[in-house]
Amino acid sequence: MTASRGRGRPRDPETDAAILRAALEVFVERGVEGASIEQIAKRAGVGKLTVYRRWSTKEDLIAQAIEQSVSAEIAPSPADVQALSPQEIIERALPAAAEMVAHPDFRALVARVMGSAVSHPKLMAVYWTHYILPRRELAAAMLRRGQEDGTVPADADLDVVIDMMAASVTYRVLQPDPPDAPEMLRYLKAVYRQVGLYRPSQES
Amino acid sequence: MTASRGRGRPRDPETDAAILRAALEVFVERGVEGASIEQIAKRAGVGKLTVYRRWSTKEDLIAQAIEQSVSAEIAPSPADVQALSPQEIIERALPAAAEMVAHPDFRALVARVMGSAVSHPKLMAVYWTHYILPRRELAAAMLRRGQEDGTVPADADLDVVIDMMAASVTYRVLQPDPPDAPEMLRYLKAVYRQVGLYRPSQES
Repeated sequence: MTASRGRGRPRDPETDAAILRAALEVFVERGVEGASIEQIAKRAGVGKLTVYRRWSTKEDLIAQAIEQSVSAEIAPSPADVQALSPQEIIERALPAAAEMVAHPDFRALVARVMGSAVSHPKLMAVYWTHYILPRRELAAAMLRRGQEDGTVPADADLDVVIDMMAASVTYRVLQPDPPDAPEMLRYLKAVYRQVGLYRPSQES
Repeated sequence: MTASRGRGRPRDPETDAAILRAALEVFVERGVEGASIEQIAKRAGVGKLTVYRRWSTKEDLIAQAIEQSVSAEIAPSPADVQALSPQEIIERALPAAAEMVAHPDFRALVARVMGSAVSHPKLMAVYWTHYILPRRELAAAMLRRGQEDGTVPADADLDVVIDMMAASVTYRVLQPDPPDAPEMLRYLKAVYRQVGLYRPSQES
């Protein structure tokens, strides 16, 4: 439908969806190097040519599969960030975030994207643009709000602080002993607390 | 020589070294899934059987290659940490650290280790034990010293703080626009400053 696609015959959205789903699965299971268009086609129940008609390389196909799997509304919305304090946002958003990042599917995808950052930078670029950047903007808004409120130092290097927050999550889930959701919730609170965005109210 | 090795004929240390070097190279270039004992043997200039006589699986071989490549003296030594202030340690150690982590070889190895964290956890376990843990212990000693000196909050969750420090380095070098050594030095100073271990003296 879009200008960048559309070689050959008209597209069937269900076939596209099946191929993208299969591409993501095979990528997560075997990495870029272990994946092939042939395996992806087989998993999707289509012929190799059907895949090649739509995507000219394995990397393009996997990039689009990643883009589609991570592109979704993020909560809280920018409007929430204006209306609520960082403390309130964190208390609302953190349980679902902990659940999500502690899930084995998240771990597995993040590992593969990190793993291909040097050999296939396009995959990291897509993940960066569609997953990481919107979340960084949210974190930046919260940190600026924290600076106004005086809980985050006025001279903090916010890009570095955001890196430290985002990085610790990825790093924690890839450690040899990965956390479950309750441990991840405790962990996220400790991270937000460290940067001055969260004060534990009672026992947490 | 050790109990865990030594099947078949006596080992030739040069052959071992060549195989381990080849294994690391092939792993970094192609990932675990893209690497094969056959390619590694060819790169090392030996027969496949020579490799299999020493390592029964590709994962065992790559694990030992990683272990050997990252096991080295770390500076500063634990004695330095006792004798010097965190500020002094950081000023001495950071230029070399920045040089090292900004190097393409470091990026490439870290990407692959992260990438195999879920599919081949043994590789991450080896990297964790031989590379990350000794550095975490050093960071913990510096942070405790910072707590005594009052620059690090007494109630800081040091495990989380260490994660944030270590993670940000990995995360930064795997970003789409990786830093060179001077940028990495600036970055590391900002990280140490954020956790209360470093005060920029002049312009830095």
